[in-house]
Amino acid sequence: MPQNRAFKLAARPVGLPKRSDWDFVTEAIPPLADGQLLVKVAYISLDPAMRGWMNEGKSYIKPVAIGEPMRAGAVGEVVESKHPRFKAGDHVGGGFGVQAYAISDGKEINKIDPKLAPLPKYLSVLGMPGMTAYFGLLEVGRPQPGEMVLVSAATGAVGGIVGQIAKIKGCHAVGIAGGSEKCVYAVKELHYDACIDHKQGSISPGLAQHCPEGVDVYFDNVGGDILDAVLPRIRLRARIVICGAISQYNATTGVQGPKNYLSLLVNRARMEGMVVFDWADRYGEAIRDMAGWMAAGKLTSREDIVDGLATFPQTLLKLFTGENFGKLMIRVDH
Amino acid sequence: MPQNRAFKLAARPVGLPKRSDWDFVTEAIPPLADGQLLVKVAYISLDPAMRGWMNEGKSYIKPVAIGEPMRAGAVGEVVESKHPRFKAGDHVGGGFGVQAYAISDGKEINKIDPKLAPLPKYLSVLGMPGMTAYFGLLEVGRPQPGEMVLVSAATGAVGGIVGQIAKIKGCHAVGIAGGSEKCVYAVKELHYDACIDHKQGSISPGLAQHCPEGVDVYFDNVGGDILDAVLPRIRLRARIVICGAISQYNATTGVQGPKNYLSLLVNRARMEGMVVFDWADRYGEAIRDMAGWMAAGKLTSREDIVDGLATFPQTLLKLFTGENFGKLMIRVDH
Repeated sequence: MPQNRAFKLAARPVGLPKRSDWDFVTEAIPPLADGQLLVKVAYISLDPAMRGWMNEGKSYIKPVAIGEPMRAGAVGEVVESKHPRFKAGDHVGGGFGVQAYAISDGKEINKIDPKLAPLPKYLSVLGMPGMTAYFGLLEVGRPQPGEMVLVSAATGAVGGIVGQIAKIKGCHAVGIAGGSEKCVYAVKELHYDACIDHKQGSISPGLAQHCPEGVDVYFDNVGGDILDAVLPRIRLRARIVICGAISQYNATTGVQGPKNYLSLLVNRARMEGMVVFDWADRYGEAIRDMAGWMAAGKLTSREDIVDGLATFPQTLLKLFTGENFGKLMIRVDH
Repeated sequence: MPQNRAFKLAARPVGLPKRSDWDFVTEAIPPLADGQLLVKVAYISLDPAMRGWMNEGKSYIKPVAIGEPMRAGAVGEVVESKHPRFKAGDHVGGGFGVQAYAISDGKEINKIDPKLAPLPKYLSVLGMPGMTAYFGLLEVGRPQPGEMVLVSAATGAVGGIVGQIAKIKGCHAVGIAGGSEKCVYAVKELHYDACIDHKQGSISPGLAQHCPEGVDVYFDNVGGDILDAVLPRIRLRARIVICGAISQYNATTGVQGPKNYLSLLVNRARMEGMVVFDWADRYGEAIRDMAGWMAAGKLTSREDIVDGLATFPQTLLKLFTGENFGKLMIRVDH
């Protein structure tokens, strides 16, 4: 019987997480109880939200407790089952954590079909990022054909899908991304009408050029200066979807509030937060749409796959430096 | 024929407006052209929004131009008319400005009936503040019976009406006001369930005490620290109505952004701006409801009436120091 390897939370980080915030332990896998199954984890999703889960305090989900395996979405294969709904050889997705093996009681996990799409797609376009993009844009942003949709972290796991759905729905789509390689990819592969490189300085001239009449829907993944640069350029009755604020997650001097928020008043506009889990009972509908668009060649996604469970602490940091290019995940070395 | 006296914008203020930002001129009243009427102004409304109208730049309404009479809502009596819809002796409300007499082309003014309610009520509960409260709370905040409605500037021209409508609609209503006199008035006269005195320090303990399960609708007139103290206490799917931000209108170092805005994400909540003019075609509906509630003794309002047109510059400042108690207006000395 193999041993498990797991990253367990050891300390609550201040600022950027560091190696010592987790213990990387090797331990025996306990025998299964009735109703449990054992999953051999294949790919682990690394997401900006993980930073928030490490903090103490009330949020939309319980913080990870000290000593618990670090929470993460993952996909893998059932290797042993005492659960009536799962059998060895099934492929499953769920919150298996940053570890090589996970024991599950079968709740909040779902079977996936590796013949329909490669496993990594179930952590990107057909997984949480895809669901976030779909419901965040269509249900919170509610863009109308012909409207201008602006997306930050435009080539990221969520943003890359938001832009493509916006185009599929007949909107204009402009992205904001860091670096010319990402911007070229945004336009060439993700069908954005234009992409503004925030590493070239203020995005304001780019907004003036590419969104000359302003922004109807801003899908925000980053917060900070970029949110503040967009606010003055929103249109009447604009909708700002607050999906995340990656620029602020490691702030040690407090979050930077959007000082231009009174543009909401001037423009009778709305800023609204979203958490993907609220739409769990409609994931099926989204997956049908997304799989259809993928099959039709209208929807693509890019995965940034890093090999080796042990790389987790430094791989996670790629999200916060913007080094990842596409949906970041770890392939577990077994 | 009397002379007109008018405050005309002379300079764009930095920070708090000062006397020299206007010229106070006495001038002849030109003869009326066909289609015009002359209004003898009786009461002039002083509103926080006036500060914004003095700034250059794009907003929901054109800035007042240098040399123009300062924009203001007002009520008065028609003294001469070459307009088919109005005759001498009619009482009218409109944007007559900070002056003793106004010439109007009849557009965007309306007849009012001084037998139905005293003239000052047409600048408060039956005027712009009343309309703002009615549509801002009911159409943007959309409170449900039993929900917790929190109101800042709770005894102000708008806030005082918001709290009473919330109670009429079966909500809990908690106010935030400055000083014990206002807080006592809020509870005794305006039917708030409780009122938190922000002059006693942080409002957080008061929020914990009076809104123990959090806030469903926050009607914000003030922004700044108070908005930031409320944000962590909003409930799931809360709605924050951004009606104003009086704490920020005279800021010379930039507006203070709400650093706790990510509570919108955690709570899938919404922050939405409103401008009363958007509901102009439904004012009649609001006035019918409000007049009915007034007649039934369910809705009261308080006016803070200062005598003398010449007092305008220093009277306006009462809004920003919180010295006014009720809807601030000037009675023109003729």
